[in-house]
Amino acid sequence: MAFQETAVQNLIEISRYSKRVVLKSLLERSDGGVSLVGEKIVIGGWVKSAKKVMNEPPPPPPPPAVAEQAVTEQAEGRPKDLSCCEILVNWVPIIWCFKKASRASSRLDKEKSTDGLRELLPLPPTVVLQVSDGSCVDRLQVVVDSSIAHSEQTMLRGTSILVEGVLQLSSVAGKSVIELKAEKILHLGVVDHAKYPLSKTRIPFDTLWDWAHFRPRTTTVASITRIGNALTRATHTFFQNNGFLFVQVPVITAVDSEGQSEKFHVTTLFGRPTKEEMQSGVNDGRDIVSLDSIKASIKDKSNRIEELKRSNSNEEALIAAVQDLQKTKEIALQLEAKEKAKAATSSKSTVFSFSDDYFSCQAYLTVSGRLHLESYACAVGQVYSFGPRFKAETKQSAKRVAEMWMVEAEIAFAEEQEAMSCATDFLKFLCKWVLENCSQDMKFVVKRIDKTVADGLRSVESAKFEVISYAEAIYALKQVSERKFDAAIEDGLPLTQEHESYLADEIYKSPVIIHKYPKQLKPFYVRVNDDGETVAAFDVVIPKVGAVIRGSQNEERFSILSNRINELGLPSEKYEWYLDLRRHGTVKHAGFSLGFDLMVLLATGVTDVRNVIPFSRSYRILNN
Amino acid sequence: MAFQETAVQNLIEISRYSKRVVLKSLLERSDGGVSLVGEKIVIGGWVKSAKKVMNEPPPPPPPPAVAEQAVTEQAEGRPKDLSCCEILVNWVPIIWCFKKASRASSRLDKEKSTDGLRELLPLPPTVVLQVSDGSCVDRLQVVVDSSIAHSEQTMLRGTSILVEGVLQLSSVAGKSVIELKAEKILHLGVVDHAKYPLSKTRIPFDTLWDWAHFRPRTTTVASITRIGNALTRATHTFFQNNGFLFVQVPVITAVDSEGQSEKFHVTTLFGRPTKEEMQSGVNDGRDIVSLDSIKASIKDKSNRIEELKRSNSNEEALIAAVQDLQKTKEIALQLEAKEKAKAATSSKSTVFSFSDDYFSCQAYLTVSGRLHLESYACAVGQVYSFGPRFKAETKQSAKRVAEMWMVEAEIAFAEEQEAMSCATDFLKFLCKWVLENCSQDMKFVVKRIDKTVADGLRSVESAKFEVISYAEAIYALKQVSERKFDAAIEDGLPLTQEHESYLADEIYKSPVIIHKYPKQLKPFYVRVNDDGETVAAFDVVIPKVGAVIRGSQNEERFSILSNRINELGLPSEKYEWYLDLRRHGTVKHAGFSLGFDLMVLLATGVTDVRNVIPFSRSYRILNN
Repeated sequence: MAFQETAVQNLIEISRYSKRVVLKSLLERSDGGVSLVGEKIVIGGWVKSAKKVMNEPPPPPPPPAVAEQAVTEQAEGRPKDLSCCEILVNWVPIIWCFKKASRASSRLDKEKSTDGLRELLPLPPTVVLQVSDGSCVDRLQVVVDSSIAHSEQTMLRGTSILVEGVLQLSSVAGKSVIELKAEKILHLGVVDHAKYPLSKTRIPFDTLWDWAHFRPRTTTVASITRIGNALTRATHTFFQNNGFLFVQVPVITAVDSEGQSEKFHVTTLFGRPTKEEMQSGVNDGRDIVSLDSIKASIKDKSNRIEELKRSNSNEEALIAAVQDLQKTKEIALQLEAKEKAKAATSSKSTVFSFSDDYFSCQAYLTVSGRLHLESYACAVGQVYSFGPRFKAETKQSAKRVAEMWMVEAEIAFAEEQEAMSCATDFLKFLCKWVLENCSQDMKFVVKRIDKTVADGLRSVESAKFEVISYAEAIYALKQVSERKFDAAIEDGLPLTQEHESYLADEIYKSPVIIHKYPKQLKPFYVRVNDDGETVAAFDVVIPKVGAVIRGSQNEERFSILSNRINELGLPSEKYEWYLDLRRHGTVKHAGFSLGFDLMVLLATGVTDVRNVIPFSRSYRILNN
Repeated sequence: MAFQETAVQNLIEISRYSKRVVLKSLLERSDGGVSLVGEKIVIGGWVKSAKKVMNEPPPPPPPPAVAEQAVTEQAEGRPKDLSCCEILVNWVPIIWCFKKASRASSRLDKEKSTDGLRELLPLPPTVVLQVSDGSCVDRLQVVVDSSIAHSEQTMLRGTSILVEGVLQLSSVAGKSVIELKAEKILHLGVVDHAKYPLSKTRIPFDTLWDWAHFRPRTTTVASITRIGNALTRATHTFFQNNGFLFVQVPVITAVDSEGQSEKFHVTTLFGRPTKEEMQSGVNDGRDIVSLDSIKASIKDKSNRIEELKRSNSNEEALIAAVQDLQKTKEIALQLEAKEKAKAATSSKSTVFSFSDDYFSCQAYLTVSGRLHLESYACAVGQVYSFGPRFKAETKQSAKRVAEMWMVEAEIAFAEEQEAMSCATDFLKFLCKWVLENCSQDMKFVVKRIDKTVADGLRSVESAKFEVISYAEAIYALKQVSERKFDAAIEDGLPLTQEHESYLADEIYKSPVIIHKYPKQLKPFYVRVNDDGETVAAFDVVIPKVGAVIRGSQNEERFSILSNRINELGLPSEKYEWYLDLRRHGTVKHAGFSLGFDLMVLLATGVTDVRNVIPFSRSYRILNN
């Protein structure tokens, strides 16, 4: 017995921290799981789809001895001692069956027998569930007899189920070779069908924007999550294998690394509600206290007191509510006095002073970690980071939202050319990794999202990236007559997403690296080329997705960097620390950042970044 | 020749993206690099220390034929065609040598020869540099002859150097077996010695708080960085090997996951300076526009114009400055009008309304990603995240700063016990990884920071973690008579850092897991135990470091969770999405978060988290 258990463990991969078998380890076996037939296991997951199959009627009552044997066979492996609760559960479907008999029989015409007796009293149906646990695309077929659980509950899409059963060869036509014959439901999490937004199949992405917390339950987003995970793993593997050290760059920063871009402020100036305000419920953190809102709150509280008086149910609650109202009124008076005082002086003073703020200065959410990474590269050589970066752009788009994850790398003793090679190798590595490690998910996204996505990855992996100068790009775009661009194409003007995409998609039909930009188009820290006009910045543009990587060799010469800061009128005292890196032991260095979320688009064929980003961090209205 | 090159590449690991050999690959070879003697390589790094060695005088002029041979030997491997610049560089030290001859000779008494001629005109010294590139603790000894570079420059601590040379057996007493005989300096980044904060050795940590950007250049912080990198790599390895998927949780969130904790607001309400303000320089983003600051700016600009008039140097600049002043004055007038209008109405309206803010609601920096992770765990099973989390606590400490990185994990179909096992295994895995993969760095931190740190890791790796209830912890602490605690020990009151540490350090002298906390001490989402009073939360406390992990099984029962939210008076409409996860297909689930920065303390022996965290994100005053 002990031996058998060991053997099972060797065969089946039990999740170490959840007492269940992860479906991927069953369904992605080369034999489809056939060698596991007969094993008793526990699996857990969510119902994706379900169908009922009418049971055959029992054979005519056999002689006593034979009947006993049949029962034993049926009950094999099922615990003999049924608890009260289990007995009840077992009986429920039968009671229900009588109630619904006629409706069920009329619905299940196909399986209806011609036997008159059966039509009057059909046997309770067996339910065949397709269960997914998110570990892989495939689902496990779980056969649940009505004696085990109420089919109306288990059949609803989204129901969670933890079930013990025995693996057997598939009894019902389906994709999988094996199925689980349920013996005991260990947990059932029901679904409120009317309210569940995923109760229908094939829901368009956009309708799920308000239901970000359910998105990963769709097969598509689960697939995207696994591909995103693979890309994360590949990222760390690439950099660690190449001797880069991971560095956490700060999210809260006083540095403005991209000049005048739109930034989020981080502050505690709006204040925490005072203890009194908390208790009175005046300020629950949802809004800044205003007299108006307090007055509204006073009205609500008065109404509530009236209600409590009417219901006469709870004296304690009434006393508390009255005290609460009193406090609120006091606060209203205080606030009124304060606001009057403020009004009297407001033409003279600022509303807030950042010297009172948490960091005693203006603090922002970081736009890019590259400047910070330089400090580490100029000490330990090769570093990378991976984390969220922020832009408060007023215009959000399918390629650009407020919070995006970036992979950033910085290499000391390197020039533009080395950063370009590293960026290209990294990109190819990511494509190769996904192709090699996510075959099932790639099959799924090819089928469901974009037929060309796997070919796209293969072509990036094998492509020779075209390297062109900004001037060449402008020249090529100016020749285009068959397309009108929204933005003008003029030497010295920035290339837009539209321009970049046209170069990769239509003109070169391959990944393109654009470099030698005019210096006014790139941030102050990019190294000025020998011509004095262009800078050592480069962008890697991939067909369909756009500029996935932006990189540069950064200025290592103190005087040139210092002049650039002054030329652009940047507050030089904020960059003293950055200039320090050039004052003392400066080295040539270069790096790049990869838009991780755009990389996920490239690998999944999704076209809107808001559909691949977890939760609603992308949207103007935050739900969570 | 081609064959030889290939052989060299096989022997020496050339950094793929920086055209130099990474020192780790030389210095950490089992033979100490002896087999590489004779190879010509390029290395880059920063000078850690240096000393001068006087050269032996050349032998008396030999007959012509012999002289030729000697020169050839000396110049072997050096390029024959010297550029103008190189010739100059080569001559500089010799010129310099004549100037400094007497000083040099008096300083270098030890190496002074008794030869009268030599005392009058000593030969230029050879410099022996210890160069580090941050890839490992050890440094490479680089011998630079005065004919190659100016010793006064190369010898300064912090100088960056990219140097081509030939590996040879070490000629000067030192730790390493091999050294690099420099042949050509490819890059030299000088140091402004008087201003360089690292010019002294053994600088106390705290004095570097204002120089966070230089910290990684110290041997200690470089070591901490490599150990931190190893812990990052180990984290991903552990979770990926156990089938967890990486999920990015949002940094900007509308959710308050820990109740009334102190949060940072994220906002754009302070406004971006308008384009006009930008151009006029009135608002460079450093402060909110106030009339006062504009008036100050007008004064500055007027002064500058006076200066320009006096200097009479640049007419263009003067015209621009006058125009600029004009614009600023216009803005001042506009602002005055606006402020008056605001003053007139401010007693009625709030100052700001969050409906005008970027996300149309109050947005915060996330305190914890666990609630968000649940949404993924309840869809794809096992997930983890790794990123920054934020608390605007007024009291910062050696263990707690505003921005800290956390590893968070969430497991579906799991209970408290499974999360505890996973947390313990993870912690042991991290300790084992560092011990196995960072031997040189561990040796260094043991020598320099804390003698017991490696033993500490070994004891965590092999420990059986004591599991005690909160009640047991309170009981044990109440027995303590030899120590007075700052905070009271009373049933129902929270355990402080001091209490937790005392349990692990003094009472159990081993890692301790405390669980079964009273429900009022833990957040609303923790699962209520069957006793109705305690909750399924646990904390893992490690000697010396404190609570490194905090975990819990979270409430999966809709009605109980919903009641908890109401009981605590939390704004339930904000948790509708979270309740949804229980409304539809709920499962038991549990998880934990590990304070990554505390883990770095554990692995390095540093006691103040502000010394291991990159940059100044820890401090109240942000320098970068």
